[in-house]
Amino acid sequence: MARSIQSIERAAAVLRLLAGGERRLGLSEVASAIGLAKATTHGLLRTLQQEGFVEQDEASGKYQLGAELLRLGNSYLDVHELRARALVWTDDLARSSGESAYLGVLHQRGVLIVHHVFRPDDSRQVLEVGAMQPLHSTALGKVLTAYDPVAHSEALETRFTALTPATATDPAAFERTLDEVRARGWASDIEETWDGVASVAAPIVDRRRMPVGAVGITGAVERVLDGSTPRPALVAAVRDCARAVSRDLGAGRF
Amino acid sequence: MARSIQSIERAAAVLRLLAGGERRLGLSEVASAIGLAKATTHGLLRTLQQEGFVEQDEASGKYQLGAELLRLGNSYLDVHELRARALVWTDDLARSSGESAYLGVLHQRGVLIVHHVFRPDDSRQVLEVGAMQPLHSTALGKVLTAYDPVAHSEALETRFTALTPATATDPAAFERTLDEVRARGWASDIEETWDGVASVAAPIVDRRRMPVGAVGITGAVERVLDGSTPRPALVAAVRDCARAVSRDLGAGRF
Repeated sequence: MARSIQSIERAAAVLRLLAGGERRLGLSEVASAIGLAKATTHGLLRTLQQEGFVEQDEASGKYQLGAELLRLGNSYLDVHELRARALVWTDDLARSSGESAYLGVLHQRGVLIVHHVFRPDDSRQVLEVGAMQPLHSTALGKVLTAYDPVAHSEALETRFTALTPATATDPAAFERTLDEVRARGWASDIEETWDGVASVAAPIVDRRRMPVGAVGITGAVERVLDGSTPRPALVAAVRDCARAVSRDLGAGRF
Repeated sequence: MARSIQSIERAAAVLRLLAGGERRLGLSEVASAIGLAKATTHGLLRTLQQEGFVEQDEASGKYQLGAELLRLGNSYLDVHELRARALVWTDDLARSSGESAYLGVLHQRGVLIVHHVFRPDDSRQVLEVGAMQPLHSTALGKVLTAYDPVAHSEALETRFTALTPATATDPAAFERTLDEVRARGWASDIEETWDGVASVAAPIVDRRRMPVGAVGITGAVERVLDGSTPRPALVAAVRDCARAVSRDLGAGRF
């Protein structure tokens, strides 16, 4: 079996560093954060810059992520089969629900948003494709954790940060929630991630009935909830969408 | 000066390969395309896979780009100062013009779209953030080529592919077009890239008056043109937007 290549691992560590927290860092800051000598770090940064993965600000000399990552990220979306199959169905979901629709997959102990359809009104909205959501507090994350054993073990390795007063931070309570999700086939997030915001999500499975992603809607509690639970019509719309995408991926009828 | 690191260059070559053309390739195909032994290539792919930059399809064993690129590409957008400054202005441009608005920067002999505001109607549109456009045939590309000496030399190194019957493929004619662009301060693309589609773009400059990007609108010729030229109101809206973003970046008033 081939061994992994140290300089590529180190280059990936530099990119992850620049993707989080400060985002514009000087040579010394990068070197001390990844624990390498300045000369070694300079070689990494210089090569990453030459390949377009890193850019250096002329005025400050600080390093930041480069444009080539955006181009490659866009190519990743083009090749993504789940996303391609879900485009039309999530569009319909946003229209029928009147809320934003999201498609998420498991990535690095979180939910990576691979598609986002804006709420069909005229409001200004920020596209969240490429953004990450926590596994323990969002509807998408709970669905992935309930159905995907890999997501489940990754979720248990993360800290259950309290994002709002409603976030479940007790692992035992979280397991009971996951049992409920599996029993009814969908998950909700009622102000557990953002105050005033609720979401509903359901699992997408492929032809082998393996969970490959989750789809859901997110909106203001005033619109999404009926009393203390999500409106049944919204839950039905989300589950219909998840079933449609699953069938498109080759899963049998439910 | 630090030397560049060969294994990172090779890893970048693998990612570029997977971003173009076939997009799902087996080990032998990757090895022969980048001209390395299979064992060496396997080490590269294995490390890239471990870092999330490459994924392997379980059924076919073929390799494709990985989710980590999408996450990093999204972080690149977050750190992009030009894009941050342009968000509000391009939104206004799309509303006032009724057409799609685009923000582009020079990247690898082309225009990289870093922001895209949908045409404000109810039609289904595909987000093009992260997509590339040619320098020689698009309004954004002509603006960058006319004002940025680096873009100009890169454009001359590319082949002037005929995308439609209207594409200018003669370098001398292209130079005359660039003179015109500089003289009037904006560029157009009238069915030179896509049949039935016209666009208008203008340059964005920073506090040192250096060209840092281009902004424009794109739409059906029936709406964008008045006779054989772009409607003056649209040209004015695009140039107003470019001036507003430039001022936000610290450029003096025009």
